[in-house]
Amino acid sequence: MREHGGRLLRAARQYNIPVSEWLDLSTGVNPDNWPAPAIPARAWHRLPEDDDGLVEAARRYYGAPHVLPVAGSQAAIQCLPRLRPRSRVGVLAPGYAEHAHAWEQAGHAVDRVSAEPLLESQAQFDVIVLIHPNNPGGETFGRPALLRLRDALHARGGWLVVDEAFMDATPEASVCANSGDGLIVLRSVGKFFGLAGARAGFVCAAPDLLKSLRDVLGPWTLSGPTRHVAQAAFADVAWQAAARAQLCQRSARLAALLRLHGLAPTAGTAYFQWCRDARAAHLHDALARRGILVRLFDAPSSLRFGLPLNDADYERLGHALGEELR
Amino acid sequence: MREHGGRLLRAARQYNIPVSEWLDLSTGVNPDNWPAPAIPARAWHRLPEDDDGLVEAARRYYGAPHVLPVAGSQAAIQCLPRLRPRSRVGVLAPGYAEHAHAWEQAGHAVDRVSAEPLLESQAQFDVIVLIHPNNPGGETFGRPALLRLRDALHARGGWLVVDEAFMDATPEASVCANSGDGLIVLRSVGKFFGLAGARAGFVCAAPDLLKSLRDVLGPWTLSGPTRHVAQAAFADVAWQAAARAQLCQRSARLAALLRLHGLAPTAGTAYFQWCRDARAAHLHDALARRGILVRLFDAPSSLRFGLPLNDADYERLGHALGEELR
Repeated sequence: MREHGGRLLRAARQYNIPVSEWLDLSTGVNPDNWPAPAIPARAWHRLPEDDDGLVEAARRYYGAPHVLPVAGSQAAIQCLPRLRPRSRVGVLAPGYAEHAHAWEQAGHAVDRVSAEPLLESQAQFDVIVLIHPNNPGGETFGRPALLRLRDALHARGGWLVVDEAFMDATPEASVCANSGDGLIVLRSVGKFFGLAGARAGFVCAAPDLLKSLRDVLGPWTLSGPTRHVAQAAFADVAWQAAARAQLCQRSARLAALLRLHGLAPTAGTAYFQWCRDARAAHLHDALARRGILVRLFDAPSSLRFGLPLNDADYERLGHALGEELR
Repeated sequence: MREHGGRLLRAARQYNIPVSEWLDLSTGVNPDNWPAPAIPARAWHRLPEDDDGLVEAARRYYGAPHVLPVAGSQAAIQCLPRLRPRSRVGVLAPGYAEHAHAWEQAGHAVDRVSAEPLLESQAQFDVIVLIHPNNPGGETFGRPALLRLRDALHARGGWLVVDEAFMDATPEASVCANSGDGLIVLRSVGKFFGLAGARAGFVCAAPDLLKSLRDVLGPWTLSGPTRHVAQAAFADVAWQAAARAQLCQRSARLAALLRLHGLAPTAGTAYFQWCRDARAAHLHDALARRGILVRLFDAPSSLRFGLPLNDADYERLGHALGEELR
């Protein structure tokens, strides 16, 4: 199992600080979550049914012709490699490590390549996996370039897989509408809606590929309450518009705060800021001693800061950075 | 995809009867569900964490030395066959069809065998899969026989897989306490607690097998709200004791009602009664026209009746049977 964010309970034990006292900036999840409504007893009681309207709501929200609900995009990441014979796979790196791991586990030949050389060497691969925008490096790609890449891969029976887990704040850059033969797009409900506990994601792809994926994943991959909440969240267009603006504002404020303390972000998205810094491991520990959890990467030595929620959180982070970095 | 119970929405459209007007007896789920509490926002908002106490609660409830939470026992059913090289697999039949299907999909040689010949021919198999008590046939097995079978299979590197999805009303017959090398037990939260929408199940097995299963299934297979609800349900010992008694009473009352109308059950468990009858398809349709959904099996021609909840439901079923079978 790769290391993941969100290990707050472990940090609480390690640093002997109660969970409730932490400022957890270790995830890329929107800190201002969509307010999940009360769950009707029926959603707990009955087997989930495929034709409850969730798929139509997701198609509208993502603007995708065909979608399959999955238990978080993680489920699709683990399953997709099983749907191809042994292939040459180029995966954007550094990036969410589960992609390369899953393709390797399924027996494919995997190269981890940074953005520019990956696109330049596309002819060497049957499958290319991009995270867009990338996590933690924030790389983005233009739609024409992505569609050309899709065309080239598709012409030789290949796939372009685009993980758009952090795309909801910038829907204009999504290629969901183009998903289909040769282009598979993964979306995550957890990050934008702040519902990481719901374990809901969607795969946008050609119908025959979705059918194969569904056959492998089996029935009832989402719980009834999660289906209820996701469908309601997709319908709340006003909240979505406000959340997009707020994510961008919070992220810009975070970047400014980091710069103020001499920790200028290397890159960022609407969900996090990323700082390459030789002192990353030391600073991670120093912040944790103050009950502030951020995400540490070893290679390259760097920290990812998730978004503080409110003024008090920004002040607490700023104070800690001021003490540790002065 | 095999046919499953719980297709109420489809029946509602087919028979043009609103969902709210149906008496749905098509599932084997406890109709008197454990009352799920309100979900703390934190459970929706944060990634689920493995060390939240759920595993310890499940170990106590099942009396098993080692357990792994899975997204319904269905997830384990689909995954287990991938953890063995090609094997000769004997699956109890008729029974929950997903078992045989999953082993076949993974490339194993599968024989579907009824209970007595399956145990007699055990030497022919590397893996034997039992559903205990069986669905829909209600077959049960003594613990000494199961442990002898486990010993014989384990001695040649084989597995005994026991699906105890319908075991919670009769915990004294469970072999969870014996799970470990050579014995894998599957449990379902949904049926006993009436939480089919939660998608929660547990695998009781040896630690190394659970680790392999976890590696294939990946992290966060249960949603945060489901983890919260399942842990609370395991702690509600008073409700569990009352539910065991009520399931047995409801099932006995259902059997008596069916007998009264000349439809003597062939077999049953605390969760359902099963009637082999040449008129099954006709009766299934006739009941559906009256807004009563039961489960139809083609081979052998039979109906499975889930438990009515209250007096009104019993009377409605009795009235319909009286009209159709007189």
